[in-house]
Amino acid sequence: MAQYTPPLRDMHFVLHELLQVTDTFKTLPAHAEVDVDTINAVLEEGGKFASEVLAPLNARGDAEGCSLDAATHEVRTPAGFKAAYDQFVEGGWPSLGCDPAYGGQGLPVTLNQCLYEMLNSANQAWTMYPGLTHGAYECLHAHGTPEQQQTYLPRLTSGEWTGTMCLTESHCGTDLGLLRTKAEPQADGSHLITGNKIFISAGDHDMAANIVHLVLARLPDAPTGSKGISLFVVPKFLINADGTLGERNPIFCGALEHKMGIHGNATCQLNLDGARGSLVGQPHKGLNAMFVMMNAARLGVGMQSLGLTEVAYQNAVAYAKDRIQMRSLTGAKAPDKAADPIIVHPDVRKMLLTARAYAEGGRALGVYTALLLDQELSSTDEAVKKDAADLVALLTPIVKAFITDNAWISTSHCLQVFGGHGYVREWGMEQFVRDARINMIYEGTNTIQSLDLLGRKVLADNGAKLKKFGALVRQLIEDEGVNEAMAEFINPLADLGDKVTKLTTELGMKAFANPDEVGAAAVDYLRVVGHLVFAYFWARMARISLDQQASGDPFYRAKLATARFYFAKLLPETAGLIRSARAGVKPLMEMDEALF
Amino acid sequence: MAQYTPPLRDMHFVLHELLQVTDTFKTLPAHAEVDVDTINAVLEEGGKFASEVLAPLNARGDAEGCSLDAATHEVRTPAGFKAAYDQFVEGGWPSLGCDPAYGGQGLPVTLNQCLYEMLNSANQAWTMYPGLTHGAYECLHAHGTPEQQQTYLPRLTSGEWTGTMCLTESHCGTDLGLLRTKAEPQADGSHLITGNKIFISAGDHDMAANIVHLVLARLPDAPTGSKGISLFVVPKFLINADGTLGERNPIFCGALEHKMGIHGNATCQLNLDGARGSLVGQPHKGLNAMFVMMNAARLGVGMQSLGLTEVAYQNAVAYAKDRIQMRSLTGAKAPDKAADPIIVHPDVRKMLLTARAYAEGGRALGVYTALLLDQELSSTDEAVKKDAADLVALLTPIVKAFITDNAWISTSHCLQVFGGHGYVREWGMEQFVRDARINMIYEGTNTIQSLDLLGRKVLADNGAKLKKFGALVRQLIEDEGVNEAMAEFINPLADLGDKVTKLTTELGMKAFANPDEVGAAAVDYLRVVGHLVFAYFWARMARISLDQQASGDPFYRAKLATARFYFAKLLPETAGLIRSARAGVKPLMEMDEALF
Repeated sequence: MAQYTPPLRDMHFVLHELLQVTDTFKTLPAHAEVDVDTINAVLEEGGKFASEVLAPLNARGDAEGCSLDAATHEVRTPAGFKAAYDQFVEGGWPSLGCDPAYGGQGLPVTLNQCLYEMLNSANQAWTMYPGLTHGAYECLHAHGTPEQQQTYLPRLTSGEWTGTMCLTESHCGTDLGLLRTKAEPQADGSHLITGNKIFISAGDHDMAANIVHLVLARLPDAPTGSKGISLFVVPKFLINADGTLGERNPIFCGALEHKMGIHGNATCQLNLDGARGSLVGQPHKGLNAMFVMMNAARLGVGMQSLGLTEVAYQNAVAYAKDRIQMRSLTGAKAPDKAADPIIVHPDVRKMLLTARAYAEGGRALGVYTALLLDQELSSTDEAVKKDAADLVALLTPIVKAFITDNAWISTSHCLQVFGGHGYVREWGMEQFVRDARINMIYEGTNTIQSLDLLGRKVLADNGAKLKKFGALVRQLIEDEGVNEAMAEFINPLADLGDKVTKLTTELGMKAFANPDEVGAAAVDYLRVVGHLVFAYFWARMARISLDQQASGDPFYRAKLATARFYFAKLLPETAGLIRSARAGVKPLMEMDEALF
Repeated sequence: MAQYTPPLRDMHFVLHELLQVTDTFKTLPAHAEVDVDTINAVLEEGGKFASEVLAPLNARGDAEGCSLDAATHEVRTPAGFKAAYDQFVEGGWPSLGCDPAYGGQGLPVTLNQCLYEMLNSANQAWTMYPGLTHGAYECLHAHGTPEQQQTYLPRLTSGEWTGTMCLTESHCGTDLGLLRTKAEPQADGSHLITGNKIFISAGDHDMAANIVHLVLARLPDAPTGSKGISLFVVPKFLINADGTLGERNPIFCGALEHKMGIHGNATCQLNLDGARGSLVGQPHKGLNAMFVMMNAARLGVGMQSLGLTEVAYQNAVAYAKDRIQMRSLTGAKAPDKAADPIIVHPDVRKMLLTARAYAEGGRALGVYTALLLDQELSSTDEAVKKDAADLVALLTPIVKAFITDNAWISTSHCLQVFGGHGYVREWGMEQFVRDARINMIYEGTNTIQSLDLLGRKVLADNGAKLKKFGALVRQLIEDEGVNEAMAEFINPLADLGDKVTKLTTELGMKAFANPDEVGAAAVDYLRVVGHLVFAYFWARMARISLDQQASGDPFYRAKLATARFYFAKLLPETAGLIRSARAGVKPLMEMDEALF
């Protein structure tokens, strides 16, 4: 069975050495008191919960899956899931990043992000239940009426109730403008909602007393398309005036999806048959309200894949040190054994280091983005807020798509390290691959992320947001340009920065002539910019590690070696990606649809 | 459920237009009579069997899997598998490529290869049963004693019995030198074999009357390591002197593996407890004998992944034409519908064309390699035999690793085209991905293939085999260098050819100084050479298609468009791969093992 050790040392490095998060927290009144000791204590406890309570349930949850009682429409989660959730609630974990006005601990997003990486390493399917709850909390916190907030936020904060987001219908996922679920206004101001939703994660289960569904539907007078969609909060059990649970609302699980992975999460078809809900935000502006939840969810998906990359790496390393097979081509390394441990073989190391470099790069990016989000949410300086918001907007699709694509590559490599043993359930590696695959799809496919990045975040404002990130890169290049020891990192970073600038300009020009040029280049473009972002963080991490070489702490030797690996073996991918991006739209569109 | 249509038109193109296989067959006395009509008739019938009989069993076989009766140690295959196998045997399909001396039809490997592509598209898990049987047939045909051949070959040819290859033990897969299974010589010349094998595909089942296991084991006087391994044939039921089945041999399935995919194939742990077998080939030379089987199996694994790429492509295209979602960025293409079919979106096309280009390129390479194998096996001209054998040796690891890696990319892209619907079982796409994953592992992992290519096939003979392929490339460049219409294909092909030459020389030099340089570069190198081979075939296919543009046949328009896509969007990957390969071994080896 797979093992998991929380990567606390690397988290400390990212939080305290690379980003010095407490310096930023001191500028934010809401978080000024959050010090290093608090952060580290929370992470240590969270890591214990992840590794001791959740990780042992992961393979079991995958094998057992969820089940639906066709008579009662109740969903049962795998053995142990509810007990673990009770423990999570008792520990106060759901409230970590929530508003003290509703019983939350008011800690920074940054800390919650690190917690979620660990929970996802241990058990992504389980973590989706509280993860979606936090999304529902954020949406109602931003857009709910005072009454809705009073009714729902304390219970979502405590974890007593969980949440979902009900967007997809069988005929529409990406294109929500097509959705058909209807909301009929009632005399008392509530709405009766009727329709069929699919792919609803954590859509029904036995872990909490109530489920707070956030449902997209159309009002009778709605314009067609995406501008006629409203958002409603629809509880599984109606809530009495005294706060107790009332009658069952007719929103029932009709079937569970049989999926490639995340078997422990109940992915439901939900049938609403006049379920009572109340409007959240303005009529017909449901997508705006939902996007609060969606953006948080996209960062969350990045953390899911970061978690899987980390845990797959850890297990592959352990196996590669233990498994003996063949001799090193440079002579026996373990002459006392019948063969050498496979970690002596260069390609095994390449697979391991790929996962390691993507995990550590992803952690730097994920925590950095969360820190920006804390500034966006909590800064009292409008200029800081604006800059942070712009960078969050730019980086969100990269966190989502680049980290999830990297996890697909990394978990597959880690499986490969096990050879045939990676393909069987026993070691847990193939589950990581199967679980990782969904992250490239939900909360906006990775193609949608790339269109969001190139079309909306970069070209739509003439590269203004990209230039804000570019300024950070340029600053680093200026600061380190004279440092000879940094040349191996700064030169390729500067080179890639120039190429991204040129590529962006070129694509902008082409897009004027033909909007399909954006769609043709976007996926390659996102990966190139993702590498620019990673190269920036790897250069900064290398700088810190170079400074610390004299300390003798092996952590910094490993960090420096991983940085060198990243620049030598992973960054070069950009050479091909840029060529492909520049090849343009013609090779994609010239074939008639009928000829496919 | 997934659909499948045999790609007969493209097979005809590859066989008759690209490779003109009957011209080669005419030079081989054994196949001189095999004409176009025969070939096409066989493929049409084989395609019918695949699409009508096997394809409908694929998803069911995945859901049901195999089961082991713990009391009897008998394995049951999914519903319908045995009936389909009976029909396969009745149709004479197992005998297609077998020796007429044992009841075979004596048709070329080339034809069998095309048949197997289709069977694998329809149902890889099922196809492994006859696939392994054919491997056992080839091994005994090459190395069996006359008595063994008389006993086993007629029944393997007819399909009445099936075969396995029993190599792996729990502590050794890649490194067979470590294996422990023992063979004790008996007074009657037979051997009693004792040991435990794992991961034995088609290791036990209810589809055939007997199973012919080819088992690697050590004789008492065996030297240690890989030079002390002998091969034995061990039937599930002993065979009486009159050819009837005798008592059950103690080779029992102890457990079935729970795998990521190919659930319909029984992957067995086999326990041999003094099972009676007879030596195949020379004592201690078992690996040599097994390699006959292994090389055929490697080509077979390439065909498995080619089949999966093709069927995933077909289903993704059908979905992309049918599913409506969003409008084209260049304006509505289906204004009468609520949205445009997703095939209008450039990145959807990119994913589809990636699978298409890899399928069609893989088919050209797979059939070409099979044709060379026919020359190696059946030519009466020693020089032709030698050239063919050299090219087969060079191309086998490419067929195995490049096609299976491409299938992993392609099936994942095709899943992605379906969005969330690709992640659920219903459409069958996620099964293709899960099934494809094993192909990168078994019959020698793709890392092993790459070491075989760079170390043994290229550097060990100073590039002599590679130069034979290079001569074909150079001939094409000379022939087409003056053809302006071909410049878009010939220029990048020539450029890549030069780069491969330089890279090979550079790696050869480095390998002198440090043998680990081979292991560090091999995986990148194989992918670069794989692209060189594909670029060569795509250029030739483009040439034929250019010549046929005036015919108005849309097949050639599609082929030309796919060639252009390949050169514009897939070949550029080589730029990054070459940089990574040249970065050498240091970034992989400088980190101490303890720091991982």
